[in-house]
Amino acid sequence: MRFLADDRSAEEIAEERRSAGGLADAVRRLIDTSIRSRVDPGELDAITAEVERLTARLAVDAPEGAYGIRYSADGDVRPWGNAVVGVRNPLAPPLDVHTEPTGRARAEFRLGAAYEGPPGLVHGGVTALLLDQLLGEACGAGQRSGMTATLSLRYRRPTPLGDLKAEAWIERADGHKTWARGHIEDAEGVCVEAEGLFILPRWAREMAQDEARPERFE
Amino acid sequence: MRFLADDRSAEEIAEERRSAGGLADAVRRLIDTSIRSRVDPGELDAITAEVERLTARLAVDAPEGAYGIRYSADGDVRPWGNAVVGVRNPLAPPLDVHTEPTGRARAEFRLGAAYEGPPGLVHGGVTALLLDQLLGEACGAGQRSGMTATLSLRYRRPTPLGDLKAEAWIERADGHKTWARGHIEDAEGVCVEAEGLFILPRWAREMAQDEARPERFE
Repeated sequence: MRFLADDRSAEEIAEERRSAGGLADAVRRLIDTSIRSRVDPGELDAITAEVERLTARLAVDAPEGAYGIRYSADGDVRPWGNAVVGVRNPLAPPLDVHTEPTGRARAEFRLGAAYEGPPGLVHGGVTALLLDQLLGEACGAGQRSGMTATLSLRYRRPTPLGDLKAEAWIERADGHKTWARGHIEDAEGVCVEAEGLFILPRWAREMAQDEARPERFE
Repeated sequence: MRFLADDRSAEEIAEERRSAGGLADAVRRLIDTSIRSRVDPGELDAITAEVERLTARLAVDAPEGAYGIRYSADGDVRPWGNAVVGVRNPLAPPLDVHTEPTGRARAEFRLGAAYEGPPGLVHGGVTALLLDQLLGEACGAGQRSGMTATLSLRYRRPTPLGDLKAEAWIERADGHKTWARGHIEDAEGVCVEAEGLFILPRWAREMAQDEARPERFE
């Protein structure tokens, strides 16, 4: 595990969000367009060479290892590499999750060509990915953070690519265990339902008992 | 649904795989490096502007809509936009799935920074995404193609980012229903287990009964 304390100022962090978040947005559009593009192989090769040059410029200072979760002295937590909500991760739509302290989470989002499974439809596994995150966020919002122990999906009808909504809530809790439910819907109703069990792992319970947050976990 | 017949030659298709697949590989490296990079905001802004220029070059001929599944007269089927196995989709690792006609599928792959959930770990939803695809591939390999009806995941221990293996197989079948199981493991053993029910939808059964494949489904 890798939590990193980050002693930069709020202004520096805001500037990272703006600049690195802007790059992630641009790379999302590149991904989407690259899947749909029909430009000829010679032009694709030329663009590939340009992409490699940009990667080399980013690699000048890019330590090995994932982004992790970073936090500031003021309690701000940044899961910016997260595959669903990470503002620095071009794979993430990213979901902009709205939570309520009663243990609810919801998000509205649009999924394009990069999230396809069956033709024209969202990949069933992508809906599982998004719901895993959203159920976890509902638990966290209700002060019942945990890691996924089990997750069950029921596919009621195909999920079309396009505009979608998702919602999740805590169903019940017992000790370190929390059960959450949720679904994804399009304009015509629910497409996929999920139910999950989330458990707070021992290392996290021990960490929560410490007065001071550790400077680094690995 | 959108299946597209594609009357290009085998050479043209091979050239698309090489050039568009090469671009997708380059964009995968861009994604990974962009998440890890610490270059300053000014350089990030400059790179963002370059990425936007490349997207504009790809957009010169990029019709709306996802890639779909394309097939040739010789029966070659190309799900190249697929979020898990699509060679043209930079979100896909992509999984290179090996199948057996008895209804088994397996893949070895490496997951980097873009697939992170908890710090240093694969997002639980990403393992669900990969297993959904792999269980479906096992069904397809056993001539029991279907769409996911239910999927259940059991997270036995955290899945570390890095080198992983996955395996899936048909457990039993009854009429249009097929049950499959599978798991993802690292060097120390199984991390996540999955069980799914796959059902061949009515439209696909009707399509299989037709002598000729339709030119286009939408």
